[in-house]
Amino acid sequence: MDKKAPVRATFADSRVFMKHAGMNLTQLLDRRDKSLGAGAELFYSDPIELVRGEGAHLFDRTGRRYVDFYNNVPAVGHGNARVADAISLQQRTLNVHSRYVHESVIVYAERLAALHDPAIESIVFSCSGTEANEVAIQMARIATGKRGIVCSDAAYHGNSELVGRLTNVGRGQPESADVHAFPFPDSYRPIVSGLSEEELADEYLARIGDAIARFEASGVGFAGMLVCSIFANEGLPDLPAGFMKRAADLVRQAGGLMIADEVQAGFGRTGHWWGYQATGFTPDIVVMGKPMGNGVPISGTGASHAIVDGFRARVDHFNTTASTPLQAAAGIAVLDELEEKRLLESARELGQMLKDGVARIAAGNTRLGDVRGHGLFVVADVVTDKENRTPDPALAAAISERLKNLGFLTATAGAYKNLVKIRPPLVVQREDIDGFLATFEAVMVEVDAAC
Amino acid sequence: MDKKAPVRATFADSRVFMKHAGMNLTQLLDRRDKSLGAGAELFYSDPIELVRGEGAHLFDRTGRRYVDFYNNVPAVGHGNARVADAISLQQRTLNVHSRYVHESVIVYAERLAALHDPAIESIVFSCSGTEANEVAIQMARIATGKRGIVCSDAAYHGNSELVGRLTNVGRGQPESADVHAFPFPDSYRPIVSGLSEEELADEYLARIGDAIARFEASGVGFAGMLVCSIFANEGLPDLPAGFMKRAADLVRQAGGLMIADEVQAGFGRTGHWWGYQATGFTPDIVVMGKPMGNGVPISGTGASHAIVDGFRARVDHFNTTASTPLQAAAGIAVLDELEEKRLLESARELGQMLKDGVARIAAGNTRLGDVRGHGLFVVADVVTDKENRTPDPALAAAISERLKNLGFLTATAGAYKNLVKIRPPLVVQREDIDGFLATFEAVMVEVDAAC
Repeated sequence: MDKKAPVRATFADSRVFMKHAGMNLTQLLDRRDKSLGAGAELFYSDPIELVRGEGAHLFDRTGRRYVDFYNNVPAVGHGNARVADAISLQQRTLNVHSRYVHESVIVYAERLAALHDPAIESIVFSCSGTEANEVAIQMARIATGKRGIVCSDAAYHGNSELVGRLTNVGRGQPESADVHAFPFPDSYRPIVSGLSEEELADEYLARIGDAIARFEASGVGFAGMLVCSIFANEGLPDLPAGFMKRAADLVRQAGGLMIADEVQAGFGRTGHWWGYQATGFTPDIVVMGKPMGNGVPISGTGASHAIVDGFRARVDHFNTTASTPLQAAAGIAVLDELEEKRLLESARELGQMLKDGVARIAAGNTRLGDVRGHGLFVVADVVTDKENRTPDPALAAAISERLKNLGFLTATAGAYKNLVKIRPPLVVQREDIDGFLATFEAVMVEVDAAC
Repeated sequence: MDKKAPVRATFADSRVFMKHAGMNLTQLLDRRDKSLGAGAELFYSDPIELVRGEGAHLFDRTGRRYVDFYNNVPAVGHGNARVADAISLQQRTLNVHSRYVHESVIVYAERLAALHDPAIESIVFSCSGTEANEVAIQMARIATGKRGIVCSDAAYHGNSELVGRLTNVGRGQPESADVHAFPFPDSYRPIVSGLSEEELADEYLARIGDAIARFEASGVGFAGMLVCSIFANEGLPDLPAGFMKRAADLVRQAGGLMIADEVQAGFGRTGHWWGYQATGFTPDIVVMGKPMGNGVPISGTGASHAIVDGFRARVDHFNTTASTPLQAAAGIAVLDELEEKRLLESARELGQMLKDGVARIAAGNTRLGDVRGHGLFVVADVVTDKENRTPDPALAAAISERLKNLGFLTATAGAYKNLVKIRPPLVVQREDIDGFLATFEAVMVEVDAAC
């Protein structure tokens, strides 16, 4: 490919860019309801149409620019040329299933394993985080001969029937015979107040122990604990010191496997390669996804030779469009970008700058009760008042909407849906963060003034 | 992109093409076992490494050419330039999740729905066939308020826990409370011998009725029947006249939904757009995958507005790398190729030529008991002797291995693993088929001589 060719010059000719035929956004939304189903998830009460992206910037049809402070999938940048070139070249050369040998798939798996804790030796590729979590649970069950999976009570790991049974267990969804939940380790709204950090850790660990014990009592038995390494869906709680290491020890002492869901936490987001390095534990099984292919569907489940070989021996597992040269091309390009552009370092440095800035704004504001996060993943906890710490999801949504109207994309998240989730692509620049902080501060001043 | 640029000229520079560092295939297979897990599926007792593809042709590292008579995913051709250009352009422009509006995703869903029976109005996109079948089962359960799924006893619909419970039920896997199987409608080895075609249809329909009735008796209730529209995994049986229409009627009379798995049958493979058109019925829910993105992971589940909207209202369904501009770009490029290159017509004409040729070879051979198929999907049923019709899976594997050694890629399949599966990309040329038939005939002469 001629790298100097003006790629965007041919947009108008491309079949991928359809003409609107004069349709406005309202008409497009109506067509969307009809073609994808009414209720297909959409951000913002006043949604936006995006047509182009570059680095951390996104553009709508009118050319209006938004700075992306939400998306973790295009971690190495919207429109990343290395990824686009790699998949183009590979798709044009060969993209076929994995029952023929293809070296780049092997090299990619080797590179991923080498980036992990030594316990992770082999990778089973899939297409989505859901699929990779399915594989992880199947691996844990085969390795232990037991079925019980422990998860947090504000988790989300995917949308299949099995993995979906781990969503918000006890908060909207009942436990099932082989899925038990423990209250996520919430330091800002702890289950018992007035405890020291160590006592609080003991309290949450006891709840994990309870969930495990109930599997032993019911005869289901305990296969493992599956948690996001940084409890992203729960709201990035500040964990008591040593909590995750003690939790992993507890799981292993009970004969289970520790499964780290790195779908949100992995690939440099926290300033470390993996979330479990940020929260200080070692997993037996890791689940990777989202930023892995910068938008190309790839996911993976990693574990020891013993666990993976045992899984392959028992399950005739095959995934047609996983472990393909296309996935390897995209995945390798992402790893190269992360390394060559030193994006982990950037996540640490700019992440600290972002978190400090948000914390400074929160300190001077009545409605931001807490600021938490790791690397370039920060949340601001929106409350009705700082003393009672009552979550205010409606205000969080209003803040996110206002930020969008001012050109900065965020969303809401967390167990109480009251967090402003601030998570730019890792290629975000210092001036973008300056711009975001200035705008966020202005919005929060408006909020305070309106109260 | 400069379409005239010599794309392959830059291969040596590309990061996607790693050097072997002098490693031979044995060493590569050892690395594969270690990095992907020992037992990761591999074709042929003497496996092959592929590095390049063009149309229906594949090439190994030494430049040796294989003619592809197996792969249905790259239906519009290995190395298809339109697909490669579309995904490159889209990935370089914008590839982001579906909670922002993107027109091409809507246009793609509209085009797919328009290609289907009018009952199919909206599409929910996923990344794999497994995921799309998960969605289909969830849709059927929500629409009916019941849980029981009927499948064939030699089916494969995917690898998640739920969908995996439909694999070979009664042939290696027991039924579960909410998954019941009926014997697939096998006309070559019927469950009752000596019946007329109509009596045989009655017999198989009665077995479907039994499976449904057992759900009613157990209180689980009947949600729907999920079958491949052409029973591909079962072995492409010749169905009794009117069988599928009567089966669909039976399902609906019992209050269930008819789910057509088109993952193998769809997108022109049979010479029709959809397998259900080849076998004569109309589905309530369709499941699409494999050739949909020519190797880019895409799948979809289509149904009426009522079914899809009902699903979306009940399940907060979201799939991060599905419904993306990248999927739409690849999917639209595939539809354009199928239409502009008249590949359905080709599947009908060349498919007939292929099937006739294989049937002619079988007629003169003692070990090919039956030839079945639709369009460019043909199977030869390998037997120990034509009278007893005893399946010979070892000979089928040996034939496929021999064909591979002679430069033609096939594989084995079917309920008894004794079928030579002959399924070239839809871009296969007449001379490829001539070449295949000559080689297949020579191999079968060898087989007969050796007996």
